[in-house]
Amino acid sequence: MSILVVGSVALDTIKTPFGKKSNILGGSAIYFSVSASRFAPVSLVAVVGKDFPSKHVKFLKSKGIDVTGLTVKQGKTFSWEGEYGWDFSDPKTIATHLNVFSDFDPDIPREYRKKKHVFLANIDPELQERVLGKMVNPRLVACDTMNYWIENKRKSLLKLLKKIDIFLLNESEAKELTGSSNLLKAAREILKLGPERVIIKKGEHGSLLFSGNSVFSTPAYLMETIVDPTGAGDTFAGGLMGYLATQKSINRASLRKAIVYGGVMATFAVQDFSLKRLGSVTKKDIAKRFKEFTRLTHF
Amino acid sequence: MSILVVGSVALDTIKTPFGKKSNILGGSAIYFSVSASRFAPVSLVAVVGKDFPSKHVKFLKSKGIDVTGLTVKQGKTFSWEGEYGWDFSDPKTIATHLNVFSDFDPDIPREYRKKKHVFLANIDPELQERVLGKMVNPRLVACDTMNYWIENKRKSLLKLLKKIDIFLLNESEAKELTGSSNLLKAAREILKLGPERVIIKKGEHGSLLFSGNSVFSTPAYLMETIVDPTGAGDTFAGGLMGYLATQKSINRASLRKAIVYGGVMATFAVQDFSLKRLGSVTKKDIAKRFKEFTRLTHF
Repeated sequence: MSILVVGSVALDTIKTPFGKKSNILGGSAIYFSVSASRFAPVSLVAVVGKDFPSKHVKFLKSKGIDVTGLTVKQGKTFSWEGEYGWDFSDPKTIATHLNVFSDFDPDIPREYRKKKHVFLANIDPELQERVLGKMVNPRLVACDTMNYWIENKRKSLLKLLKKIDIFLLNESEAKELTGSSNLLKAAREILKLGPERVIIKKGEHGSLLFSGNSVFSTPAYLMETIVDPTGAGDTFAGGLMGYLATQKSINRASLRKAIVYGGVMATFAVQDFSLKRLGSVTKKDIAKRFKEFTRLTHF
Repeated sequence: MSILVVGSVALDTIKTPFGKKSNILGGSAIYFSVSASRFAPVSLVAVVGKDFPSKHVKFLKSKGIDVTGLTVKQGKTFSWEGEYGWDFSDPKTIATHLNVFSDFDPDIPREYRKKKHVFLANIDPELQERVLGKMVNPRLVACDTMNYWIENKRKSLLKLLKKIDIFLLNESEAKELTGSSNLLKAAREILKLGPERVIIKKGEHGSLLFSGNSVFSTPAYLMETIVDPTGAGDTFAGGLMGYLATQKSINRASLRKAIVYGGVMATFAVQDFSLKRLGSVTKKDIAKRFKEFTRLTHF
């Protein structure tokens, strides 16, 4: 079954201990859709400027991604400039140029509205809700957010959460949203806000899934070299939603496997800048790393 | 098969967000032996001062711990005063009074020298090596260390590591010892220094076992409330060594289970100050939490 993602497309400039790359393809909708496309068909809703290179559109199409919903607007593409140190956990933002993304208010093409799986990447929760309102009876809706929206659009975010099946957020966001420094307590608070399931991403420390009284905790795959962690969270979401879209039933077993697939996909994303590694990942690569991950954690 | 532990016995004064307790029973050898005693017989080598309350000795005996090697010396018992904030990861040391521990140079009672399992808790690596030299053909030797020895007794530590089967250290120690901020690289460096297996403890983020080319990664059990994390690392080592002492074969499967038991025991240690919870843990409690941990991580 197919997936709809609404989010950002960016031309990023990124510096890590492994080098600096300018104007490289990025954005939440890109990482998500390339990751999810390894599992199921993906349709993308996003906006770019006139400067967006046609080679990137060609690349997305080559991955089987439906770009009917990619609007080209007068102006420049959204761009983020950031720098990571050796710990990779907390990038320094050098500059954010919203450009055409600043008044992003996506229309959802008619043929997209019946998509069964919806991922609302990190954008204004009011937009996320507006998009969701246009969808006809989706089977599974997941969303991401960021500290900025928790601080500045809390009310809209809380309204949105009542309509969400899977809410993905990172550790610091979970703590900020609930005021609790304990992740178990934070997750229980968040479940009360509406989402059926909460996934807390802990980066190099793995992730947690909370659902009712059930908790699943998984470490991260160990990487000898991380070149650029940009997009890891959206790539994770892509693997998660991609795998679930192939499953008849969304239950405890399939959700746990989906989280492991999410983690597996993220390991490819961080192995090189932009989509350089993730973009060439085969089903065989994924199966191999899933097996390695099983070996890493099984007792 | 029985276990020998050499380490510290302390009267700690500890402040956490849950209160302040003065002169409570602590020390690496205490946490280790109480934890390990749930699995196998433990003999303790340590020193205390004349002020050491007899009720603590009675408590150790009630746990079946052999205290023949507990020397009482003129002077006061070692004491540590520390304070934890809400994140619990990095205590502030208010005071350390070595007292009788300052010239600790333990003799190993003759009847202890054939013990098959040896845990050298965090003391001067020269002492650790001296103790080990007195042991007759042990089956399994594990040791712990701390940043202070890495910085000040590096050469002695490296000499010791050539004789160790399992080296336990925490994340920051692994990074300091090797100069590598990547744990996979750090562990590979450490394995080259001699120990057959390396366990890197990551506190609330679980632990890693490295052995040849095999890696095992396990998250931590999720705790709603941590009252006092003091002794968690030694309690972990106690569960690990205790379980292994019951196993015919020390192999991949038993080591992985041993690490999970170590993590399980640590969860009891942190639930209250001193040995208050850990000291009353039953085999049934342990089995229950082991099962919960399996449910938490299985996919």
